[in-house]
Amino acid sequence: MTRSIRAAIIGASGYTGAELVRFLHAHPLVEITTLVADRRAGEAMEAVYPHLRVAALPPLVKLGEVDWQQIDVAFCALPHATTQQVVKSMPDHVVVIDLSADFRLRDVATYEAWYGSHQAPELQYRAVYGLTEHYRAEIAHADLIACPGCYPTASLLPLLPLLKAKAIVAEGIIIDAKSGVTGAGRAAKEATLFAEVADGIHPYGVGHHRHMPEIEQEMSVAYEKEITVSFTPHLMPMNRGILATIYVQLAGGQEPASLRRLLHEAYRDTPFVHLLPEGVMPATRQVRGSNHCLIGVAEDRLPGQVILLSAIDNLVKGASGQAVQNMNLRFGFDEAEGLGQLALFP
Amino acid sequence: MTRSIRAAIIGASGYTGAELVRFLHAHPLVEITTLVADRRAGEAMEAVYPHLRVAALPPLVKLGEVDWQQIDVAFCALPHATTQQVVKSMPDHVVVIDLSADFRLRDVATYEAWYGSHQAPELQYRAVYGLTEHYRAEIAHADLIACPGCYPTASLLPLLPLLKAKAIVAEGIIIDAKSGVTGAGRAAKEATLFAEVADGIHPYGVGHHRHMPEIEQEMSVAYEKEITVSFTPHLMPMNRGILATIYVQLAGGQEPASLRRLLHEAYRDTPFVHLLPEGVMPATRQVRGSNHCLIGVAEDRLPGQVILLSAIDNLVKGASGQAVQNMNLRFGFDEAEGLGQLALFP
Amino acid sequence: MTRSIRAAIIGASGYTGAELVRFLHAHPLVEITTLVADRRAGEAMEAVYPHLRVAALPPLVKLGEVDWQQIDVAFCALPHATTQQVVKSMPDHVVVIDLSADFRLRDVATYEAWYGSHQAPELQYRAVYGLTEHYRAEIAHADLIACPGCYPTASLLPLLPLLKAKAIVAEGIIIDAKSGVTGAGRAAKEATLFAEVADGIHPYGVGHHRHMPEIEQEMSVAYEKEITVSFTPHLMPMNRGILATIYVQLAGGQEPASLRRLLHEAYRDTPFVHLLPEGVMPATRQVRGSNHCLIGVAEDRLPGQVILLSAIDNLVKGASGQAVQNMNLRFGFDEAEGLGQLALFP
Amino acid sequence: MTRSIRAAIIGASGYTGAELVRFLHAHPLVEITTLVADRRAGEAMEAVYPHLRVAALPPLVKLGEVDWQQIDVAFCALPHATTQQVVKSMPDHVVVIDLSADFRLRDVATYEAWYGSHQAPELQYRAVYGLTEHYRAEIAHADLIACPGCYPTASLLPLLPLLKAKAIVAEGIIIDAKSGVTGAGRAAKEATLFAEVADGIHPYGVGHHRHMPEIEQEMSVAYEKEITVSFTPHLMPMNRGILATIYVQLAGGQEPASLRRLLHEAYRDTPFVHLLPEGVMPATRQVRGSNHCLIGVAEDRLPGQVILLSAIDNLVKGASGQAVQNMNLRFGFDEAEGLGQLALFP
Repeated sequence: MTRSIRAAIIGASGYTGAELVRFLHAHPLVEITTLVADRRAGEAMEAVYPHLRVAALPPLVKLGEVDWQQIDVAFCALPHATTQQVVKSMPDHVVVIDLSADFRLRDVATYEAWYGSHQAPELQYRAVYGLTEHYRAEIAHADLIACPGCYPTASLLPLLPLLKAKAIVAEGIIIDAKSGVTGAGRAAKEATLFAEVADGIHPYGVGHHRHMPEIEQEMSVAYEKEITVSFTPHLMPMNRGILATIYVQLAGGQEPASLRRLLHEAYRDTPFVHLLPEGVMPATRQVRGSNHCLIGVAEDRLPGQVILLSAIDNLVKGASGQAVQNMNLRFGFDEAEGLGQLALFP
Repeated sequence: MTRSIRAAIIGASGYTGAELVRFLHAHPLVEITTLVADRRAGEAMEAVYPHLRVAALPPLVKLGEVDWQQIDVAFCALPHATTQQVVKSMPDHVVVIDLSADFRLRDVATYEAWYGSHQAPELQYRAVYGLTEHYRAEIAHADLIACPGCYPTASLLPLLPLLKAKAIVAEGIIIDAKSGVTGAGRAAKEATLFAEVADGIHPYGVGHHRHMPEIEQEMSVAYEKEITVSFTPHLMPMNRGILATIYVQLAGGQEPASLRRLLHEAYRDTPFVHLLPEGVMPATRQVRGSNHCLIGVAEDRLPGQVILLSAIDNLVKGASGQAVQNMNLRFGFDEAEGLGQLALFP
Repeated sequence: MTRSIRAAIIGASGYTGAELVRFLHAHPLVEITTLVADRRAGEAMEAVYPHLRVAALPPLVKLGEVDWQQIDVAFCALPHATTQQVVKSMPDHVVVIDLSADFRLRDVATYEAWYGSHQAPELQYRAVYGLTEHYRAEIAHADLIACPGCYPTASLLPLLPLLKAKAIVAEGIIIDAKSGVTGAGRAAKEATLFAEVADGIHPYGVGHHRHMPEIEQEMSVAYEKEITVSFTPHLMPMNRGILATIYVQLAGGQEPASLRRLLHEAYRDTPFVHLLPEGVMPATRQVRGSNHCLIGVAEDRLPGQVILLSAIDNLVKGASGQAVQNMNLRFGFDEAEGLGQLALFP
Repeated sequence: MTRSIRAAIIGASGYTGAELVRFLHAHPLVEITTLVADRRAGEAMEAVYPHLRVAALPPLVKLGEVDWQQIDVAFCALPHATTQQVVKSMPDHVVVIDLSADFRLRDVATYEAWYGSHQAPELQYRAVYGLTEHYRAEIAHADLIACPGCYPTASLLPLLPLLKAKAIVAEGIIIDAKSGVTGAGRAAKEATLFAEVADGIHPYGVGHHRHMPEIEQEMSVAYEKEITVSFTPHLMPMNRGILATIYVQLAGGQEPASLRRLLHEAYRDTPFVHLLPEGVMPATRQVRGSNHCLIGVAEDRLPGQVILLSAIDNLVKGASGQAVQNMNLRFGFDEAEGLGQLALFP
């Protein structure tokens, strides 16, 4: 019989922390024993997230108060550049599942070019990139899992099988991505006020968004050659969701149907990634609140060009859901345990 | 060991039909064997609701194609005034859980004044009003359960315990309600187009909304005297949720704290209705997607007046969730079985 | 021929500041000579409000840099409790039109009970309450005009004519108000983030909102007797707009039609306040971006009770539009000059 | 002195009809004499659009009731494929400004491939394509002006000056467009219900949207060579606005700065098209309700690739505003007359 495990959420006051609670609370093999939120320590979780009032949860504590002997797995849902120090301070028996960007980039120099000084380069080699469907074997034995960003998850799931098979041209790939607001977190900023976001759309980080090197790293690994992409994110008035519209060129001898075949083979046995039938396109609202990723493939009007479309919930498959999926793999649980909720529509 | 049951959803193409699928699909003791949607018969459920693609579901069929021998419980999620004929045609062994208004009004004449001719008055006496927390005993033995409307559910849950105790004055109760758009269903109407609803609010049915007689019926039963209420619904730009702001006068000798005490006693042992602590007010987003009802009580600036606030998800506690809760009671399952999902926030 | 005037906007970086620019820029008799925004001084207005890029505007300056000799009228759009000091420091020739709460309460003690110490009690007696339709004569000669709050404007316009005529009972009036988010200003706060506001509604300030004393003050003046009201504001996911649903009792001998008559007489010659025909109810989106107020009157199901509904744009008739309307009166311009824009729908 | 003209709006009950009223009502040289809306004939405009109640407008009539002698200019705001018959039936002295697709495609065969049989091919040669900034001379003398679609307007304004100068490569241009809901009109459809659009985004018409041939026609004319583009529209939860994100390759010897220079020269003397400073990107909310188009230029991470971004209000510069701008040109008025309103933000 499977033994249940004890989980800590470090950074419980952010949106991804609250989502971790939602999934772990429903997980039959996990007990949430510790919620860390330094600035809100001493408060009940329901003071920070009233929708969690109905769940029986431990109080928020400071990181220094954690009794690590009571913890098997720690989910780190901290802002970028704060996790490295925290992980360094944890005892070895704790499996770390990190949702920040802190351990995603294999090359420390690249990390430092985009995020500043790396605080734990000696741990980087232990980190496994947590794009579940592509790193299952590694995740199953990892003690430090760096869960992908939301944009990389939405972009890489349709691209990696095609790049591995060299079915598309590596040059000139364009990712035009549209995201909901929760990707920006819960920190109070003018740019994410309701009145600044509602009823409009705008691009941001054009030409220099931090998720670029992560996307390129994994594309390059898959293609076994350095790849540079065009990636333009847009902020739009929705709570959750990422839609990636990806423009690719067919490699010689390929056609849209062969791309479909590769994606079908890559994901037909996975519980959460779904190739849509020909002519069917994904919408973010079809995955709202769920761990699913929907992928569509369309022939473009431009000869030789194909449009890949993928939709995820940025807080779920793009963050907390994938983190729980990785935990399931790591502890030998069923990969989908605790993640069975259907999307909430409307 | 509990035997699992086989469920049909009649009217599967509406929003409440899709929500029934969401809950029953997650229910360990229910098998969805039949989905009826006359106009979409022959199609897969995913053609009507793409977010349900990931669930294995039976195809949509016409009502006439249903094999009733394979069905223990039928959820009717049809438009008002169409259910009576349908229920009449069903064999007796099928437990009917109706989400329409067709069997909610005990008095056939009242029904006909608001909805037109009643097609099955001979069945009305069998119907039990399905406000779970107040009709548990009756629901447990009913074969025809008339689930309350969304506005009545949001209004009655805070009011009934106070009326039963005669702790508030029966005259002059004002219910100012705000609802999301799904309450109007999925039929294509100009009034519920995105551009007609977004970024605004307006009242509707002022002085003559069809949920009034249902609210008054149950208030009168609780108070054992005819009650007339003021009820004004408003349509606002959100998918889900009802907030009822209710203005009541304290009866002699009562004070806000005694109202709180009554509500605490009424609901402390229920899984889904929650009295909030003093000073805490509910928000619809705290119950989005869940079967919970949150109730707040505030002393008003006007002496002797108290403001009751309640929030539900109109499609869940106000429709499909409460229907499943009633099914649980009727078949002897745990009342909360299949309804454990936390609210989706943000 | 009418001489044009020179205007300063103090607090140009807030939403009401930007709206003042929108109206004054279109005003044929006003020149915007000065924009004050201390924290953004030195920047162009378009850096703060990109939608104003297409207007030729003076740069943002600090208050200390203003050359008051070049200014005839100053609009103060500052946070509450900061205007009193600023107004004290201005030379006498400048007409002050204040959009904050700082000079709205005639009784300094009441002000201090709700807002803290009053910094310029010696100026309070000069202030005229700027609810245009009810203080035209006073506004025409005032040098300090305290424009009403958005909730008071929406509430008082339907109520004052009825209270003056003693056509409604003064006790037990209930104002249930629903507001868009811009009423909370542009300051970055968690509570007004998109994800915290979208797809939901909640009450706030229940029993103790700061607009209460202002509403009561003017109701009491109109009725010539102290009045206490019930006022409950709700925050909802829209940029602009206030809908007030007001429950009143008819005074002896009155009926709904006589209330309609009084409102018709009060406003038939005004350009911006409109009594809707019987059976027609207002919606906030019908006034979005415009200076209009729409008023509906409905007989309630409760005998003797009437429901008044009014809709305004909180940033326009509830703030900057009414301020410009007051400026027009004060300088002898046509009352509607510069305010002729129709609502933006959808 | 300029003589004022009399305008009819044919199709006044659609969103573009209502927007024409908004602009023409504010236009000092135009009198709206006739509003045609066959299905709503006999009603007041305020019954169809309550926000227009405050404007004095003629009643809605049937097309057959129009007295053409009283009309100088007719705006046709009818669904596609209905305008050709209507225009054929009008007397010659009426200048026709058409907002449908019926006369946009110069090649009748292309029209018929996308829209079905052309009802007035004999009029097609008279039609001038009404992209104001690029067809000023022709528009000034045209009697039939075919105003561009919203997607073509947003796409062509940044592209045409670059194509004319052959500064970008004609092959492989990708237009990823995001639109608000009003582009789909006011007809009641399930797909544009609030609950189907809110909190999500999805692509549509992938590979085969009807605006493609129009975009390609004008690009080809500018480049003097047949061009095929990739164009993917997305529907998102906002009332108004189109953002086009356009990926182009620099032609030999060009650099981002030279594209900026060309756009600057093309538009510096125009009132409504604005090249944004380097590093500044447009947002749809910056043009909401206004006739402006904002264009941004960014160097992409992919060498030799540049991203063009343009934002318009689909109902204004993408429809009714541009129609009025064309009317101004045609009748010798100032091009910006009646279109001076600043954007409504928030």
